[in-house]
Amino acid sequence: MKRIENFQSIIDKYEIIFFDAFGVIKTYQGLVPGIEKTFAYLQAQNKEYYIVTNDASRSPVQLAESYHKVGLHAITSDRIVSSGMLTKEYLDLKVDDGIVAYLGTANSAHYIESSGLHTLPVSEINSSNIDKVNALIFLDDEGFDWCRDLNKTVNILRKRTIPAIVANTDHAYPLSVHDVSIAIGGIAAMIENIVGKKFIRFGKPDSQMFMFAYDMIREYRQVSKKDIVMVGDTLKTDILGGNKFGFDTVLVLTGNTLPHDADARITSTGIVPTYICNSAVVETGGLGF
Amino acid sequence: MKRIENFQSIIDKYEIIFFDAFGVIKTYQGLVPGIEKTFAYLQAQNKEYYIVTNDASRSPVQLAESYHKVGLHAITSDRIVSSGMLTKEYLDLKVDDGIVAYLGTANSAHYIESSGLHTLPVSEINSSNIDKVNALIFLDDEGFDWCRDLNKTVNILRKRTIPAIVANTDHAYPLSVHDVSIAIGGIAAMIENIVGKKFIRFGKPDSQMFMFAYDMIREYRQVSKKDIVMVGDTLKTDILGGNKFGFDTVLVLTGNTLPHDADARITSTGIVPTYICNSAVVETGGLGF
Amino acid sequence: MKRIENFQSIIDKYEIIFFDAFGVIKTYQGLVPGIEKTFAYLQAQNKEYYIVTNDASRSPVQLAESYHKVGLHAITSDRIVSSGMLTKEYLDLKVDDGIVAYLGTANSAHYIESSGLHTLPVSEINSSNIDKVNALIFLDDEGFDWCRDLNKTVNILRKRTIPAIVANTDHAYPLSVHDVSIAIGGIAAMIENIVGKKFIRFGKPDSQMFMFAYDMIREYRQVSKKDIVMVGDTLKTDILGGNKFGFDTVLVLTGNTLPHDADARITSTGIVPTYICNSAVVETGGLGF
Amino acid sequence: MKRIENFQSIIDKYEIIFFDAFGVIKTYQGLVPGIEKTFAYLQAQNKEYYIVTNDASRSPVQLAESYHKVGLHAITSDRIVSSGMLTKEYLDLKVDDGIVAYLGTANSAHYIESSGLHTLPVSEINSSNIDKVNALIFLDDEGFDWCRDLNKTVNILRKRTIPAIVANTDHAYPLSVHDVSIAIGGIAAMIENIVGKKFIRFGKPDSQMFMFAYDMIREYRQVSKKDIVMVGDTLKTDILGGNKFGFDTVLVLTGNTLPHDADARITSTGIVPTYICNSAVVETGGLGF
Repeated sequence: MKRIENFQSIIDKYEIIFFDAFGVIKTYQGLVPGIEKTFAYLQAQNKEYYIVTNDASRSPVQLAESYHKVGLHAITSDRIVSSGMLTKEYLDLKVDDGIVAYLGTANSAHYIESSGLHTLPVSEINSSNIDKVNALIFLDDEGFDWCRDLNKTVNILRKRTIPAIVANTDHAYPLSVHDVSIAIGGIAAMIENIVGKKFIRFGKPDSQMFMFAYDMIREYRQVSKKDIVMVGDTLKTDILGGNKFGFDTVLVLTGNTLPHDADARITSTGIVPTYICNSAVVETGGLGF
Repeated sequence: MKRIENFQSIIDKYEIIFFDAFGVIKTYQGLVPGIEKTFAYLQAQNKEYYIVTNDASRSPVQLAESYHKVGLHAITSDRIVSSGMLTKEYLDLKVDDGIVAYLGTANSAHYIESSGLHTLPVSEINSSNIDKVNALIFLDDEGFDWCRDLNKTVNILRKRTIPAIVANTDHAYPLSVHDVSIAIGGIAAMIENIVGKKFIRFGKPDSQMFMFAYDMIREYRQVSKKDIVMVGDTLKTDILGGNKFGFDTVLVLTGNTLPHDADARITSTGIVPTYICNSAVVETGGLGF
Repeated sequence: MKRIENFQSIIDKYEIIFFDAFGVIKTYQGLVPGIEKTFAYLQAQNKEYYIVTNDASRSPVQLAESYHKVGLHAITSDRIVSSGMLTKEYLDLKVDDGIVAYLGTANSAHYIESSGLHTLPVSEINSSNIDKVNALIFLDDEGFDWCRDLNKTVNILRKRTIPAIVANTDHAYPLSVHDVSIAIGGIAAMIENIVGKKFIRFGKPDSQMFMFAYDMIREYRQVSKKDIVMVGDTLKTDILGGNKFGFDTVLVLTGNTLPHDADARITSTGIVPTYICNSAVVETGGLGF
Repeated sequence: MKRIENFQSIIDKYEIIFFDAFGVIKTYQGLVPGIEKTFAYLQAQNKEYYIVTNDASRSPVQLAESYHKVGLHAITSDRIVSSGMLTKEYLDLKVDDGIVAYLGTANSAHYIESSGLHTLPVSEINSSNIDKVNALIFLDDEGFDWCRDLNKTVNILRKRTIPAIVANTDHAYPLSVHDVSIAIGGIAAMIENIVGKKFIRFGKPDSQMFMFAYDMIREYRQVSKKDIVMVGDTLKTDILGGNKFGFDTVLVLTGNTLPHDADARITSTGIVPTYICNSAVVETGGLGF
């Protein structure tokens, strides 16, 4: 584990950079100040980059638009790999027909639709269509009535022997400097425990997220795991998952892991990043860049 | 483990009988048919009995009234030991002043109030009173807005280092022959996992429930654990807890454990009741009773 | 939560003091320096005291002797409540005949023997006597061949539907300033997970330990939970368990919880002692005691 | 989920077949009777096949030899993908120098050696070389003294902030018709729990096993996930993992899942194979094959 002063020296070492989104590029307050310099440098150096994010609430196109709105045009939809995309791949491969019931907004359900499948919010499942429900997906913590629809979800899963897919494994997410919000991954864990069945989870630290991104790249170029570095703010997702897949990893201190307890957390969890860097911002300073 | 045909022979062996409520005395359809004969027999034989129940939604007086309404007058409030009563004892002993925030109905909060304490629903906690919150209690799954108040609960517990008490450890409860409902114990487990703190749980199989009942009896008479039998429908709460405390136990098959898989569940869990009996109903038949 | 400078002021507030053993009275280096002054003060003040310890490796008589050997004669066997004594009570009440198989030393098995029961180390169970095994007890991490006997234990529990009792819930214990040792509670958790059955655990934080001690006292005098304080070095056992049972609690910093991170651990676990005190040693200093 | 009478019809539907080893091809009694017909048919049809196994005790060459010895020559080392191979890849990519401490036989350690790395059994770690230990690997349940070396492992992991890799995730494995044995994955889970750190696990149901095999194939040919079927006897590893990765799956009833409770287990776990088939044996019967 090495402490690195300037994130630029990390970019210089690798051909491809994977970034976590929340806590690395943006926070609840907007973009991490100066992060646009990093993407300018990446483009100037002809380096590739991808955003690898546990987010199933929106399509890659919509996620990219959210960056464009705040002035970061370097992040285009083809550079985003989300846990929602793995969910869509699962449905494409494994569910041939019938209804896919979901918890989340209509928006979150729209982009995972496959030919032959019909998505329907849990609230619209009833005795006339429950027999056609062939999968149930936890997409987002918004867009439904928690009390009514979580109870309904429990009973659908008790009656139907079908796959339950958790499209975002996070249990909570930051809302402001003081507050967090319960995420759909936390809700799904409660329901999995109550119904006693095994759910399918997509999202870091699970390898399949990294695999999906790695495969996307290999469709058009040759690359080795040694050429890729994963940049994240969370030891238990970004760093653990990146390490396990065989990537080098960078822990940045602009999100979940605070500067004053990074060392203590690394020691207590045993999750060791290849590098620690204050942020993913390239400090151009007097470097003539 | 012995199979017993007539529950009467069990009553004849012990001085005091503890009954679980749900699945033993009543179901979602009302009283277990014939159960009034059991209580008539108990009274005729001058045997003592107590209802030991994971229920914090109502006071013992209100729980007793619910039996009276359906014609079972033998269950009076002084015969009821609930996990809510342990919660009240905890507050009496351990929380001296300030606000006790709660999730549940106003009714469920009313009877746990102690002198010097002020109960307030989570929905009414705000920046002006949060510093006075000295405990938070999970009482009932009804009476609040799940999305708004569960998120609020997470953030109160992140900001205040206070005891969180779960007054009912069950994760779900039966609603009808086909459906269950998420119980406050399941919700509390999700929040405990998110905030990473240790909650205090009251309810079977925890010994403190049995202790509370055992103590109530010893206030007016001498008794040994050998003289008491616990009757329940659930291996993991009633039978495990009763066994551990040192009581003999009876598994009845009118609730959670169905006749066709009682043996398989006993083998797979390793939780062995002293007796198995079809129900807690005394079969008076031609016995001249 | 209040910080207390001199432990004497705590003794002065209560009628009965419960002490954890390891980390409070003794460490791997011997007695906590000065602890004999505490017991001298307790005796001078006519205060009662008990040692409440997760230890099943020896009988109360042997545990007391180990204090006498290092010069602490105030701790007599009748002042010791151990998780081993709860195990013995369980066997007395719940296992009528047959063999009790155990993991531990012959010494640890000796004192839990009941009339009618025969204790036998797991190593001596074979096809000729396995059908008579009516309970299996995890007593101590010493006295057996781990590889041979742990595998044997797994298979006995797969073949026999009998209670498995864990007489010490700790997963590890300190061996020296740098090293710990795997405790029988950690081994038992591994085997419980493999065989998929529910084991019965005795030991703090479980209430039954406190109940046992509380009952011992009430046999000869009246007492209220308000009159008793529990002194311990471990938040998750001594303090959590004491709080839950309704006792006031004192966290001392001579064992598991170190002075520099006591506050951080209290905040992160949400387990709040009534008092924090550097040690359980009465500082007699110039007080003329 | 469809019940299939003859395994041949499954082979006919796919281009590549992945087999679990234990419970599918062999049991503790040797080869599954008739399984050689399946491999003869695969070769006659020019179908590809791979063995995907949670086994780190031996190298692929040695695993292949074990099949040759019992007469199954169709399984060559290049057709074997083991969790041990993922462990080796991890070391190659992520650990540059120093000592890799291990639990297992010398044999199990030999094949994972990388250039620049030195493997050393835990028993040989001492104060003179502990500072050079840069990874610790759980390889096999044999080859070491459980009591001495498991305690030593706990203390190495408390002193060194290094990755701990579990090369086989299984908690137990069958030894005979009546007995099982504790596997290294079960031991590793106990130690992970005691030291409180996050270990890295390789093995089904984790996607990385399937990814490794899928990548091996794509090095020399184009293939889609739709062309591959995973055949296994265990719902929670083979079928859950295969489903999640996007493969079709076949549950066979010659191992962990018995014919009389396959349906109950599928319903209770919610893990649904694409097909159920009595065995992976091609019934040539009168088919003229």
